[in-house]
Amino acid sequence: MKTAKTVLVMNGPNLNLLGAREPGIYGALTLEEINRRVAREAEALGGHAEFFQSNHEGELVDKLHAAAGEVQGVVLNAGAYTHTSVALADAISGTGLRVIEVHLSNVHRREAFRQQSFLSPVCEGVISGLGWKAYVLAVRALLTEDE
Amino acid sequence: MKTAKTVLVMNGPNLNLLGAREPGIYGALTLEEINRRVAREAEALGGHAEFFQSNHEGELVDKLHAAAGEVQGVVLNAGAYTHTSVALADAISGTGLRVIEVHLSNVHRREAFRQQSFLSPVCEGVISGLGWKAYVLAVRALLTEDE
Amino acid sequence: MKTAKTVLVMNGPNLNLLGAREPGIYGALTLEEINRRVAREAEALGGHAEFFQSNHEGELVDKLHAAAGEVQGVVLNAGAYTHTSVALADAISGTGLRVIEVHLSNVHRREAFRQQSFLSPVCEGVISGLGWKAYVLAVRALLTEDE
Amino acid sequence: MKTAKTVLVMNGPNLNLLGAREPGIYGALTLEEINRRVAREAEALGGHAEFFQSNHEGELVDKLHAAAGEVQGVVLNAGAYTHTSVALADAISGTGLRVIEVHLSNVHRREAFRQQSFLSPVCEGVISGLGWKAYVLAVRALLTEDE
Amino acid sequence: MKTAKTVLVMNGPNLNLLGAREPGIYGALTLEEINRRVAREAEALGGHAEFFQSNHEGELVDKLHAAAGEVQGVVLNAGAYTHTSVALADAISGTGLRVIEVHLSNVHRREAFRQQSFLSPVCEGVISGLGWKAYVLAVRALLTEDE
Amino acid sequence: MKTAKTVLVMNGPNLNLLGAREPGIYGALTLEEINRRVAREAEALGGHAEFFQSNHEGELVDKLHAAAGEVQGVVLNAGAYTHTSVALADAISGTGLRVIEVHLSNVHRREAFRQQSFLSPVCEGVISGLGWKAYVLAVRALLTEDE
Amino acid sequence: MKTAKTVLVMNGPNLNLLGAREPGIYGALTLEEINRRVAREAEALGGHAEFFQSNHEGELVDKLHAAAGEVQGVVLNAGAYTHTSVALADAISGTGLRVIEVHLSNVHRREAFRQQSFLSPVCEGVISGLGWKAYVLAVRALLTEDE
Amino acid sequence: MKTAKTVLVMNGPNLNLLGAREPGIYGALTLEEINRRVAREAEALGGHAEFFQSNHEGELVDKLHAAAGEVQGVVLNAGAYTHTSVALADAISGTGLRVIEVHLSNVHRREAFRQQSFLSPVCEGVISGLGWKAYVLAVRALLTEDE
Amino acid sequence: MKTAKTVLVMNGPNLNLLGAREPGIYGALTLEEINRRVAREAEALGGHAEFFQSNHEGELVDKLHAAAGEVQGVVLNAGAYTHTSVALADAISGTGLRVIEVHLSNVHRREAFRQQSFLSPVCEGVISGLGWKAYVLAVRALLTEDE
Amino acid sequence: MKTAKTVLVMNGPNLNLLGAREPGIYGALTLEEINRRVAREAEALGGHAEFFQSNHEGELVDKLHAAAGEVQGVVLNAGAYTHTSVALADAISGTGLRVIEVHLSNVHRREAFRQQSFLSPVCEGVISGLGWKAYVLAVRALLTEDE
Amino acid sequence: MKTAKTVLVMNGPNLNLLGAREPGIYGALTLEEINRRVAREAEALGGHAEFFQSNHEGELVDKLHAAAGEVQGVVLNAGAYTHTSVALADAISGTGLRVIEVHLSNVHRREAFRQQSFLSPVCEGVISGLGWKAYVLAVRALLTEDE
Amino acid sequence: MKTAKTVLVMNGPNLNLLGAREPGIYGALTLEEINRRVAREAEALGGHAEFFQSNHEGELVDKLHAAAGEVQGVVLNAGAYTHTSVALADAISGTGLRVIEVHLSNVHRREAFRQQSFLSPVCEGVISGLGWKAYVLAVRALLTEDE
Repeated sequence: MKTAKTVLVMNGPNLNLLGAREPGIYGALTLEEINRRVAREAEALGGHAEFFQSNHEGELVDKLHAAAGEVQGVVLNAGAYTHTSVALADAISGTGLRVIEVHLSNVHRREAFRQQSFLSPVCEGVISGLGWKAYVLAVRALLTEDE
Repeated sequence: MKTAKTVLVMNGPNLNLLGAREPGIYGALTLEEINRRVAREAEALGGHAEFFQSNHEGELVDKLHAAAGEVQGVVLNAGAYTHTSVALADAISGTGLRVIEVHLSNVHRREAFRQQSFLSPVCEGVISGLGWKAYVLAVRALLTEDE
Repeated sequence: MKTAKTVLVMNGPNLNLLGAREPGIYGALTLEEINRRVAREAEALGGHAEFFQSNHEGELVDKLHAAAGEVQGVVLNAGAYTHTSVALADAISGTGLRVIEVHLSNVHRREAFRQQSFLSPVCEGVISGLGWKAYVLAVRALLTEDE
Repeated sequence: MKTAKTVLVMNGPNLNLLGAREPGIYGALTLEEINRRVAREAEALGGHAEFFQSNHEGELVDKLHAAAGEVQGVVLNAGAYTHTSVALADAISGTGLRVIEVHLSNVHRREAFRQQSFLSPVCEGVISGLGWKAYVLAVRALLTEDE
Repeated sequence: MKTAKTVLVMNGPNLNLLGAREPGIYGALTLEEINRRVAREAEALGGHAEFFQSNHEGELVDKLHAAAGEVQGVVLNAGAYTHTSVALADAISGTGLRVIEVHLSNVHRREAFRQQSFLSPVCEGVISGLGWKAYVLAVRALLTEDE
Repeated sequence: MKTAKTVLVMNGPNLNLLGAREPGIYGALTLEEINRRVAREAEALGGHAEFFQSNHEGELVDKLHAAAGEVQGVVLNAGAYTHTSVALADAISGTGLRVIEVHLSNVHRREAFRQQSFLSPVCEGVISGLGWKAYVLAVRALLTEDE
Repeated sequence: MKTAKTVLVMNGPNLNLLGAREPGIYGALTLEEINRRVAREAEALGGHAEFFQSNHEGELVDKLHAAAGEVQGVVLNAGAYTHTSVALADAISGTGLRVIEVHLSNVHRREAFRQQSFLSPVCEGVISGLGWKAYVLAVRALLTEDE
Repeated sequence: MKTAKTVLVMNGPNLNLLGAREPGIYGALTLEEINRRVAREAEALGGHAEFFQSNHEGELVDKLHAAAGEVQGVVLNAGAYTHTSVALADAISGTGLRVIEVHLSNVHRREAFRQQSFLSPVCEGVISGLGWKAYVLAVRALLTEDE
Repeated sequence: MKTAKTVLVMNGPNLNLLGAREPGIYGALTLEEINRRVAREAEALGGHAEFFQSNHEGELVDKLHAAAGEVQGVVLNAGAYTHTSVALADAISGTGLRVIEVHLSNVHRREAFRQQSFLSPVCEGVISGLGWKAYVLAVRALLTEDE
Repeated sequence: MKTAKTVLVMNGPNLNLLGAREPGIYGALTLEEINRRVAREAEALGGHAEFFQSNHEGELVDKLHAAAGEVQGVVLNAGAYTHTSVALADAISGTGLRVIEVHLSNVHRREAFRQQSFLSPVCEGVISGLGWKAYVLAVRALLTEDE
Repeated sequence: MKTAKTVLVMNGPNLNLLGAREPGIYGALTLEEINRRVAREAEALGGHAEFFQSNHEGELVDKLHAAAGEVQGVVLNAGAYTHTSVALADAISGTGLRVIEVHLSNVHRREAFRQQSFLSPVCEGVISGLGWKAYVLAVRALLTEDE
Repeated sequence: MKTAKTVLVMNGPNLNLLGAREPGIYGALTLEEINRRVAREAEALGGHAEFFQSNHEGELVDKLHAAAGEVQGVVLNAGAYTHTSVALADAISGTGLRVIEVHLSNVHRREAFRQQSFLSPVCEGVISGLGWKAYVLAVRALLTEDE
């Protein structure tokens, strides 16, 4: 295992478009800027953040497999795959990783199909609708004591 | 308005039983102990937390009306009313309060009727499944800068 | 019984916010101003109007029990409880009161859960989508001859 | 435009049978008698009522087209077409006419398919379950000030 | 704890109307008369019955909290809240009280929404459709040996 | 009333195409040929058959109104309107005519929307899936004794 | 094969109660009386009727197997099994028998579960809602020419 | 009729396995032991109990037919047929017998298909979730005065 | 048959309002202007276009019957009847006409009931969401070679 | 117990028709021929097969009860009862028998009601769509080592 | 941007099998032959077509990202991903590309799951059921004037 | 084609975790160990097995395309993609490969979404709930005679 305090921050399809893509829904920050803030928070808490983004469901599954046993936990914004990927859900429960699901927008105000998450039942928790802060708070949840 | 940095932490029905009630689901902390941690976090961020618990839907609605224009935001664990109360949802949108919905347990692993929240679409965000930390993170979201 | 021509005008949760609350949906009049117009109409028809507002489902049920046998009829805007309260519906059928359900906004243009009314099947009639006039027309329906 | 105070009262299929047809549900008045009362109300309010009945969906659509820009508003009891006609709904939104939907009986106590109205979302308001008074109240809503 | 043989008999909204309210459905006995019979049965079995009725969901929740650890069991006719109250269901499972759900009428012959009970899955048993005897039989179930 | 033994045989949309239209589903006989057989049966039973076909829902409604009180009963193949016309259903119950619904094909083997008939609940009976014989049997049902 | 003109008339569960059982729904004739009329009709058409009644699903299936290749067709009132028995449906399609489904009452006016028939899609036709005549008409359909 | 005080206790499929079968769900008593307790209760109330068990739906229907007019009432645990047998429901309403439906386990905590009972709407009452006591209480309900 | 290259362009209810009616949804062109462009395209491809508009479902059915065997194909914007008319669907399959369904707006962004088309399964193809071009492209599809 | 290596092969309703019945769906082999192949396989694996077929749900339940503790396992093709029999499912879980569900045809290509199996959740496994081989493979699964 | 007149033609999973794959559904042309016709059409209209096919959802998302700002529009036959990919839908709305969805077959005649398209609501238009012409017409829609 | 007796054994997402992943559900064997047993079985039957595993939907589709015409058949455990991939289903029907779907666990005891398989209707058969034996039996089905 890497140092126990490593957090993997994974982003799914289209999140590489952040900043450009529909800022009314997703905010004006780029993914790089969000990552920078997340990295800062992780370090402030004595940890370290790693980043991964892919538009391919299979690559996200592969990455979770690779992370198993290597990281303290995962902050996962699976984007569209949240609503369609049983494979990602199985990867989370299969690897036994602690995963916190995050969303930039409040999915509960959007299309009906976005109300369904295959991931939520196998994640430790869910944070949605708080913009970039969702990532930062999830890192904090993973890197602070549970007691 | 009270000082802008006041956060109201509201708990709905049966949350006064915390600690005693089904610790396998809700954790072993009492509501008082959670409130103490929340108060500490609010003060660490230069703010202040107030607390309210009631088993009565109407009292929760009344309290939101009273809080309108008086607080920076509300951390709301409406318990069972999350799933049945349109009145609370209307109170949130009617008062224009910033509200963050929190849940101690991961509602996505429980009965189907707990997957539906009347509140989520009118709240700023939702944090669930992270135990007492959900309250602390919500306070942090309300008392830190959005930019 | 009070004089047979008394009409009880009951308003449910959040309607005390009228005027302030989402004027785009509910109009700019306060509840007091609407009540004044209703009172005027009742008197013009030789009757009298009484008013009651509560955010508590139980208080609305209690009030209907108290009104049974005392009033000519009830004009009821139960707000959110329209869609969730079987208790109010049972109170209407249990007391045998003549009740007209009213809504300020056209509920048929809003969220799906607002299309369902537990009250409509036990009310004498329903008037919706005509703003404050709905109250005035309902009073007129109760205080004029049926023949 | 005809004088601004003209109201068109339209009745759909089978309403020509009123008085004869199932009086337990629809009351004992004939359509002519209802129209007479409506005409009286319109004149009392300084306006004028015109009447149209047809069992043909297409004729009702044609009539709405012809009325556009000619009348103050429409009182529409579309009978069975309420529940099946998207064409009438499109005619209402397409002409921009102010239309109030009325029903003699309380549709909420009847078959499930009568709970669905294609028209309600495009009408200004709905009055149901008050017998012939529904027409009279609708005329009053159209011919009195909105303020 | 009070004497172990105390049974709490709780009635929810509109059950105070019994005798007056729709006798075709609920029978001609008043709640007081039913309570008298229940008290007699409890005493015949060496126990004691206490009674509580409220139209307020929150008061029923409060009462269950207060009864926890104090009574042998609860006979609960939650009336309309049977079908809408997750809060009462959570109070039952949260307090760990033994609760038997009773209904005067056979709910299976009535509206579809009365077929759903949030309480049944957390109650020890359900007795419905046997009129006032349901209460008496429930007391008997609580005050006799399980073996 | 015409002679009591007159039976009206009504056919709805597209049934004028019979013989040409999809013979695999509807058989090879033309509507004229079926009518001839029906007329023969009516006369054999001491009665008389009249025929009406229209592709217009409104005309079918009008015809039922005109037949009220004039005929012994109606044999109705409403074709597509069976599945979409509440207006025809209301015309049947509004006129109080005895109507037997018939279908050439076995609708239960076809598209799901053809399983729903608005007419069946207000008709005296239904005969389907027996080809042209359905008409002949329906006439027989209307023109023979019920005892 | 027996003489080609034999028709088997099968009745399912509870139809042995006819005459006694709910005459408001099923009519006042006993099954024996209905059978007598059916026998008469069969003979008038140069055929012959045999009768079988059972409350056992398996016996009805066995009987259909035995009748395969022996009779001209089957008139089947499967009673309650109409709505629940896939086994009977499979027996009909498996034996290749011509079967006409009949019902005494108009099932379309009754409980929702009676609207579903597993048998209709595999029967040649369906006759319902015409009382005892349904049997007689079905026999006629089987014993007359199709051309 | 046998002596008016005879009660028939009927058990459906698999209940002969009681004691052996899944004691965690159904309890550890055998059917014989339960019957002995039921017989004792009947006799204590001046009545008499008869017992019948079958795994065959048709035999249960036959037995109900035979009991009509012979017994004071029936205590029926139809087991799996509760959820699938329209034939049994029709037998209950067709014979006019007073029947109380009982279940050993709390069916509301089990699979969704066990929430549906075809029998409940035609039974006088339902007792579930109280183990063997359900039978005893049902006998008591049948053998004591209704007033 | 008319010259094989004739294309019939049929428009259903409310499409005569085009240009005036909700231009944000349907565009600013009148139906006449669209027809002119369609006619030009047909002629450019060596064909000829005829036009028909009606608000009456029955007239549209009649027109399809009349066109059978007379035209190369039909471009059909049935407007609201797309979603409610089984009669039009039967007319298309009954006549065997080649029909292309067109829509000006992207129906997939609109109300749920507009997602259902009774016509699509019996049409050769569907073009939607491309404004007036949909008509022109449909004509092109009908008047060019399939190979 | 019989020798541990006995396998019971049970077939439900209509499977006695195999070979004759719809060979396009079920294949051309008779049940006897299939049984012969199954017996051969059992013996090749050092075991023994017994066979039972019935069209009666109750007899299949009885047979499972009788087999409990007597056989190594059961190969069950319950035919139509697969989709309707909760009684068989309860018999499987109640006896604790190892049962493998088999189907000759691929039920997933057939009617929707054949997609639902009450038996699958209580069986050890399911084999479908491989014709007579399904039986043989199931026997092999029961008679070979699990390790 | 490439020359404004470039159109990207994207094909999703299994469309590389065209010609070989189920010609009864998809036609006998290979994808190469269709592309050749499309290229010809694009050039005839003064434009240019580029082609991309992949069986990988992620590659299709990546390609849309790469095309943003580079092409005049996209003709997209996403094949199976039409019905399952929220990621592609988000890529379309996230990039702001003009996309026309095309299908070779008439999806409305096929399985229910093919009636749902995640893409249609975010595409400019949809063309289905016209074989290879769908591509050519879509190119024409993109490369001709909108006015 | 490779030797006709080659069988391709394909495993989808997360099946590379076997042995480690949730052994309570999937068993304790690694995929390598299962493959070894499968290879042995294939060879015992005179054939040969090839193996492929991927977490990428697109790679599984590509592999099926490559296998078309090269192998005797495919044993496919598509894991999570069973429930979400129309692309794989289309690849199976498009290539015309004989495919047997296998599952290690009994999917019928698990989450509702695992009851739906897009693949089953296009596969030759399905084997589930028999652990590693499912693979071995599927190979046997493919490599033995069908007669």
